[in-house]
Amino acid sequence: FAKGVCNKLKGKVSQDAKGISLIKGVDVSESGIVLFSEEIGRALNIPMGVLSGANIANEVALEKFSETTIGSKIPEHGDLYFKMFNTPYFRVNVIQDTVGVELCGALKNVVAVAAGLSDGLEYGDNTKAAIIRRGLLEMRKFGKTFFGGVRTETFFESCGVADLITTCAGGRNRKVSEAFVTSGKPIQQLEAEMLNGQKLQGTSTAHDVHQFLSARGMVEQFPMFTTVYKIIYEGLPPTKIVEDI
Amino acid sequence: FAKGVCNKLKGKVSQDAKGISLIKGVDVSESGIVLFSEEIGRALNIPMGVLSGANIANEVALEKFSETTIGSKIPEHGDLYFKMFNTPYFRVNVIQDTVGVELCGALKNVVAVAAGLSDGLEYGDNTKAAIIRRGLLEMRKFGKTFFGGVRTETFFESCGVADLITTCAGGRNRKVSEAFVTSGKPIQQLEAEMLNGQKLQGTSTAHDVHQFLSARGMVEQFPMFTTVYKIIYEGLPPTKIVEDI
Repeated sequence: FAKGVCNKLKGKVSQDAKGISLIKGVDVSESGIVLFSEEIGRALNIPMGVLSGANIANEVALEKFSETTIGSKIPEHGDLYFKMFNTPYFRVNVIQDTVGVELCGALKNVVAVAAGLSDGLEYGDNTKAAIIRRGLLEMRKFGKTFFGGVRTETFFESCGVADLITTCAGGRNRKVSEAFVTSGKPIQQLEAEMLNGQKLQGTSTAHDVHQFLSARGMVEQFPMFTTVYKIIYEGLPPTKIVEDI
Repeated sequence: FAKGVCNKLKGKVSQDAKGISLIKGVDVSESGIVLFSEEIGRALNIPMGVLSGANIANEVALEKFSETTIGSKIPEHGDLYFKMFNTPYFRVNVIQDTVGVELCGALKNVVAVAAGLSDGLEYGDNTKAAIIRRGLLEMRKFGKTFFGGVRTETFFESCGVADLITTCAGGRNRKVSEAFVTSGKPIQQLEAEMLNGQKLQGTSTAHDVHQFLSARGMVEQFPMFTTVYKIIYEGLPPTKIVEDI
């Protein structure tokens, strides 16, 4: 979808323009990972920032206090984004680790699937907190293993720990995954019933990440991502979400 | 209470004994902060470890999966604690930063009061995630400012981010603080009505921490701790929990 829009825009965007991506996801294949912001930046030949954080749209619309993280490699563009987006109820923090911001937005959904499995099994608050914590560490490990410049501090930003908390509290990844346990229906059927056929981000990201890790013989080093994949796609019992991590 | 028990035990504890504290709190006064584990260790003249984490007792009793963090300065004692406490459903991680573990257990309750204020005001998931995130950073800053050896990694342990999440999700600090907003009653009355007169830990820790910070002219450097104190004890409007942080 993003590629199609970029192709239509090609040549029609001023070369002085700056872009900011709000897409939560990464393009993962066996051969590698491509960040959407980089892909858009290349297609339109403009510098790109990324925005991600614990800011569920309808609460922002109601002007309830929230925070966001903007990643911008170029400090002056960061200053501009801050001026554009920061308000008393929408607090912006600009950091340079764009890759970390973008990865958080994508990988949090895999952790939310794990949290949903735990909810479906009625495992309680301790278990869910453990899943969120380990998920955060696995997100960080993924970033640091496969990308340069991903920083530990990024996971203390709104795009990191805070967004992970909201996504694992509400969010459709958590909800559909909970229904996966309680209904026993396959994900495709739940996508059809609960999301009007739209694809669930967390499960498809878990799938892509698994292909990527398999190709590198590294599935065991990311036990939560791997276990989510196996439960959703290979019939592993949901209880393995705590037994195998 | 702990002092009284220690005085009774004095001289009756083997000098080969090792202690482990599960107390969640610190003894803060204007003149300084004393960790309970240090106080007990001094009183009984034995080495002390500390245990803290996202492990609500009734869920542990039901053998639901949870994690905990044990702080032990002496590695061999850490190995012993691991053997004693670790099970398939109660996963122990031993670290050396005992101070960090103990501070997390105490300061998380102040953050839970802030989260409860937000819930009382019906501010939603974004706001609560922002409060948890900023609270985590303030806890870390407090540890690093006033104690040596407190490590960033400790806040990624169960005693850090995970326990903070469970405490801000359920927990009586969050609950009483929510009622403080919705009922308009003072904390003492709520303690009498909701806790049979027991003192709420989060508010009393906020009080003690405020005295400590005031004596050092540092209240502004810890805006969340300070705002919680002012809302509970000085009549500041609860909405300031987001406006002043």
